[in-house]
Formats: sequence, C-alpha cells, structure tokens
Amino acid sequence: MGKHAVVTLLSDFGDRDIYTGVMKGVITKINPDVKLIDLTHQILPQNIAAARFCLMNAYAYFPEGTIHLAVVDPGVGSKRRAIALQFPQGYLVGPDNGIFSGILPQSPAIKVVELTNLHFWRTSQPSTTFHGRDIFAPVAAHLSLGVPLQDLGEEIDPQTLVQLDIGQCSQRENCLFGQIQYIDYFGNLVSNIPSSYVQEKNWYVQIGDLTIPGCTTYSAVEVGEILALVGSHGWVEIAVNSGNAQTKLQINWQDRIEVVLLN
Amino acid sequence: MGKHAVVTLLSDFGDRDIYTGVMKGVITKINPDVKLIDLTHQILPQNIAAARFCLMNAYAYFPEGTIHLAVVDPGVGSKRRAIALQFPQGYLVGPDNGIFSGILPQSPAIKVVELTNLHFWRTSQPSTTFHGRDIFAPVAAHLSLGVPLQDLGEEIDPQTLVQLDIGQCSQRENCLFGQIQYIDYFGNLVSNIPSSYVQEKNWYVQIGDLTIPGCTTYSAVEVGEILALVGSHGWVEIAVNSGNAQTKLQINWQDRIEVVLLN
Amino acid sequence: MGKHAVVTLLSDFGDRDIYTGVMKGVITKINPDVKLIDLTHQILPQNIAAARFCLMNAYAYFPEGTIHLAVVDPGVGSKRRAIALQFPQGYLVGPDNGIFSGILPQSPAIKVVELTNLHFWRTSQPSTTFHGRDIFAPVAAHLSLGVPLQDLGEEIDPQTLVQLDIGQCSQRENCLFGQIQYIDYFGNLVSNIPSSYVQEKNWYVQIGDLTIPGCTTYSAVEVGEILALVGSHGWVEIAVNSGNAQTKLQINWQDRIEVVLLN
Repeated sequence: MGKHAVVTLLSDFGDRDIYTGVMKGVITKINPDVKLIDLTHQILPQNIAAARFCLMNAYAYFPEGTIHLAVVDPGVGSKRRAIALQFPQGYLVGPDNGIFSGILPQSPAIKVVELTNLHFWRTSQPSTTFHGRDIFAPVAAHLSLGVPLQDLGEEIDPQTLVQLDIGQCSQRENCLFGQIQYIDYFGNLVSNIPSSYVQEKNWYVQIGDLTIPGCTTYSAVEVGEILALVGSHGWVEIAVNSGNAQTKLQINWQDRIEVVLLN
Repeated sequence: MGKHAVVTLLSDFGDRDIYTGVMKGVITKINPDVKLIDLTHQILPQNIAAARFCLMNAYAYFPEGTIHLAVVDPGVGSKRRAIALQFPQGYLVGPDNGIFSGILPQSPAIKVVELTNLHFWRTSQPSTTFHGRDIFAPVAAHLSLGVPLQDLGEEIDPQTLVQLDIGQCSQRENCLFGQIQYIDYFGNLVSNIPSSYVQEKNWYVQIGDLTIPGCTTYSAVEVGEILALVGSHGWVEIAVNSGNAQTKLQINWQDRIEVVLLN
Repeated sequence: MGKHAVVTLLSDFGDRDIYTGVMKGVITKINPDVKLIDLTHQILPQNIAAARFCLMNAYAYFPEGTIHLAVVDPGVGSKRRAIALQFPQGYLVGPDNGIFSGILPQSPAIKVVELTNLHFWRTSQPSTTFHGRDIFAPVAAHLSLGVPLQDLGEEIDPQTLVQLDIGQCSQRENCLFGQIQYIDYFGNLVSNIPSSYVQEKNWYVQIGDLTIPGCTTYSAVEVGEILALVGSHGWVEIAVNSGNAQTKLQINWQDRIEVVLLN
C-alpha cells in the first residue's frame, strides 16, 4: 500500500488508442506514488477465457498486496456486476464475468464487494462503455492508498461470482485427455493438463495420427521440429523448436489433445 | 514537478524499435524521479489528425502539471518550429504542426515558446531525423524538474500556431451533419458530433440506406448488430456489439454521417 | 543503484502474453523502488542480430549504472551460458549468444560472470523454457539493489563470449560496400556504414541501376521519393519521405548496398 503499491493492468484495449493511458492518468491523479505494471493489453477482443488464463498464471509472481485491475468487459453498461475482492496475495478489481475464476480456485477470495459506492468512482455518471476509466481504475487507485475494501460497496457472497466453464482434463488408465486453453505469441499451444500429471514420467502427445515426443527443452529436437514439454506456466505445451506450432499444426483454441504416459 | 512529475509520451514510433525507450532513457537521465506514462506509440505513421484526437481526449484525465510529449513529426529537420507551451492543465511539448490544435480551443495556451535554447537540448547538433530524442525529450525532462518555460526559448504568439483543419459538425433543423474523425482498435467509428447534441434525446444515425439506432450501451442490441451511442470520449460513435463496425460497414476516416433527432 | 536504479527490458516476447509483465513482477518483488523501462519486446522471434543492433544503439542514452536485461534466447534450456557483466555505462544481463556483441567492441566489459549462484535465482529449479523469469530478472533485480557482480557466479574471460558475425563495411577508393543490418518499423533501411565515412562529403547510394541521393533531411525530396541520409542511430539509412523504403524498394535484411563518395 502507499509508497510501494503496485497496480497491474490487463485489458483487450490494444495499444493503438489512449484507453490504457487514460486509466493510468486517472490512477496517478489519485495516487501519485503508485507503481503501474502492464500485464498485457492485447487480449483478443472480449476473450474472457484468455484474460482468465493470463491472470491465473501471472498473479503469483507479484509482490504481496498487488492490485490486479482487469478490464475485458463485453457486458459493460449491462447488469453485470462491477467487483473488487481481497485474496491472500492482494486484490482483484474488474467485472464479474469469470475473468477471475482461474485464480480463485487456487487462492480463494477473503472478501468480495460489489462496487456500489459512487464516492470512489471518478464520476457519479460513468460512461456506459468505459467502466475501466470511470469505476475500476479509480477504485484500484483508492485501494492502493489503503482504502478498506468494505468501503467500496456492499459485500457479496463469493459463491455467487460468475465462473467461466473451462474444460477440465481427465485421466483414463495411462491416457490424459485435455484441450488447448491458450495459444501464445510464439504459437505455443498451451493445454489444460498440469505438469503434475507428467512429472518424472516418460510421455508423448497423440493428436490423430501424429505422435509428439515429451521433452524438457526446445532444443531436444532439431530446429523446425515439433515437441511437447512442460511450459513455463506449468502446463503441457506443444511447440516447435524456433518455430510456430499453431501455424505448423493448424491446431486451435479448445482443440482436444491426448497425452500417453509410458511409465 | 520534481518528485511527482508526470510525463506522457505519444508518437507514431510503433513498438518494434528503440526510439521510445531511448527517449525514456534521455528523460530519466535528466530527472531520475519522473513518472513516465505512454499514451500510445501506435499512431498511424505521420497521422497528425489521429495524434490530435488522442491528445484532445486524454489530457483532462491526468494530474495537474502533467507534461505531454508528442512526437508525430513528418516535418522533422525542415523549418517547422519545435515548441513547448503552458496551458491550464500542464505543459505540451512537440512540433508545431497542429498536433495540439484539438486541446487549445478547449483549454487555451497561457504561454508558448519556440525551443531555441540549445542549453536544454541533449546536444547542440541534434539529429535531423529524431528531435524526439535530442530536443523534445530533454526539454520535457527539464520542465519536469521545474525549469521555467521562458528559459527554453523565445516566446511566440499562440495565434501563430499551426491549426489542423478538422471538419466541424453542423445542424440543419433536426439533422446533424458530421464525419468520422477517428477509428479505434475495436473498429468503433468516432464521429465529430459531440454528445451535447443528442443528450436526453431520441436519435438515430443515417448512412445512405442504413438506419442505426441511437442506444446507451453496446448490449442494447444483439451480438453482431450495429448500434450508435455516445462513446467514452463524448462523441457519437458507431459500433457493433462484440464486433468491428469498420469492417462490417466498410466506413473510413473522414466519411460523412448524419444524425437524425426525433424529439 | 537502490532508489534510482533503472532496469531496461528487451525481448522477443511480443505484447500479447504475460511474459514481460511477469518478469516485471519478479523484479519489483525483489526491488520495489526499481524503475523499469521497456526497450522493445517486438524483436522478431529469435532474431539475435536485431536485438544486438537495438542494444548497441540504445545503451548510451541511459543513466550511468543502468542494468540492461535482454532475453532473446533461442538456446534456453541448452548449454548456452547465462551471464551478467559490468561495463563502463552499467550492467548487461542475458544469455551468452552474441546479443551483447554490438556493445562490447564500443565499450568493453570490465568483469563478466556466469550466473551459477542459485541463491540469486527465483528458484533453484528454473523453468527450462523461461530463464528470463527465473534467472535473468531476479539477477537484474539483485544487481539493482547493489549486490556485487562477483557474487552472482564464477568469473569468466570476456574473450570467451559468443560473438555475432555481422558483416563489416569496407572501402575501395571512393566506394563503400556495406549491407542492411536493421529495418525499422517505418521501413527505413539501416546499413552498417557509419556516419564517419560520409560526414561533410557529397555522396549517393547505388543499388543496381538505382541511384539514391545522400541528403540531410527527409523533406529534402518530395513526399513519396527515395533518399539516403545519416539516420538518428548514426548509420547511413535509405528512407522514403513520408513512406516505407522496404516496401517500395523490396530490399531485405543483409542485402548489400554501395555508397559512392563524390569529394
């Protein structure tokens, strides 16, 4: 809080417009000492699942108390709730649309409020299309100054928060069944199969007729060759050494994959 | 100023090269305490009108005294003037090419100088192609340390500043005639018709045969449907709920639109 | 160091994912006072030559003591060394793959260490695919707190560092022979011919049948016309006034050019 407060920003605003810069202006006007760190603003427009994945894999690396401000908000101006919540590592601020539903099963909410206290908004008549600027950014800034969460609005039951239905991976004998939950800038295909299933085992990925060896580094195969490995986020990934697996394999978001365990 | 000084940066440099990073290095070398906030560096190359729009819609959200450094500068190295000016909300630094001509009618200049004092440049022999690094960045940094504006060069008459000729909207009976002045990353088409013309009215947009309803939120229409609304910048915009209006309508910068008022 | 420490970040991570944000989280957790400046994260994937060019042309503009963290690392997880080094202007942290071999001939290393001291890593079991997060970022953060370089690992001989083989320019009578070493976002073609060869001379560029005049500003030719000039990085560049030279000339990385000196 205060001098060392960190606010991260994640959105689907892209980098062409002033939306992100304006949110930073609003925050800095309220707390001139805050430290702002961009997670990404290149979430594909309105792709809540990608935003959920990014937040879920990022929060643990930030200082305790960090405030994560996330605005992927196709329902802005409708009845979706605006929320802020405290969890063990810090605070989350954004729309109640499932964007935080990757973090919370790992690190449950301590307290959740609906952002109903206009006193902490930028204006009592917020834009119907940009709550990031008029509600979420000022609320995050006030939290960074030490305003207690409960002052921001009415407490709500964490059980009522919107969940995003992401397929779970499953196991049948020595086969794991999962799907692609994220594709990164390099074209690496990130599945929803966690590393714990394959740790200290020999394994391969099967997609149709294609068998992809489970490795530990990109350079385990020749440049241009396909491999599978546990990626840096802790999930089974499919990659191409010095290449793009999405382009090479024509695999897409939500496509199914199968991992075969050998021992 | 000093410890809490904020400098924003806007340019058409893109994010691939080191131009922006180098400007930040130059500023930080002069004022290690400065806070740097990017507005955007994705202005389409040499699109002064887009830069003007972005600055005009951003400045009001920043702390008082903020210094806005803007470098969209097709005339660099020619005789266009390099300027800095004080206005009620802070300072503007950049080329005199109309980039600030959206802000100044709203919030007139208090004092304007041409940047002729080499003492505040990075070098007395600036690159002929990168005044951002050699003139504008160091000048902004010195302003952020509290150097008085008049020390930076010779005072000039605000009336002599270059104006960018942006079409005005006009009204005839219950019809407003305007044009598209900006298209954002989402494909939202931002007109030059301010919200004041349609506030508390019923209205629609007419483009050729197409009638687009005036709404208050994206979700007022089905996903994929076209709507018009007052966007977050305070202008009449045309959008598609969860989609891209530019692609769907094949409308472009400067295209004309008509708003019909119903009451 | 300490309160005013600056860490710059350069990578090929792009802006879509959380990789860069996570490195910033890791650094900020270790040194909450550090100032982070992005050089660029849009280096073409695994293009070490482009990264080398960017670092070589950027470092001189930053405050003394700045720590440059560079992660373009196709060999991550293989036997390539992880290094940190002190040089007159500050520190460099990254893989030993030639990424720093543009800076060091200009400003030689004072001391180099291989990053073998696990105590300064984020974890003793780093991801095999993301040393940026688990080794380089925490090491840069500890350097920014004043940890002595020699504590980070075993000293190695600067002569053993990997060099990137970039073609040199050569002169024969009044002709200079060079090649394109970088193409920027604007499509400007940056050669490896330094400004010293053409200073205070009249000169032109010859490519096949095409003669391109040596000028001092973009506006020396009409809009859309080709020119050559000494660019802001101090190399002979080919550009188009208000246009894109790469697209217009269909010239590519490593293509050869010839400069003819007239006096």
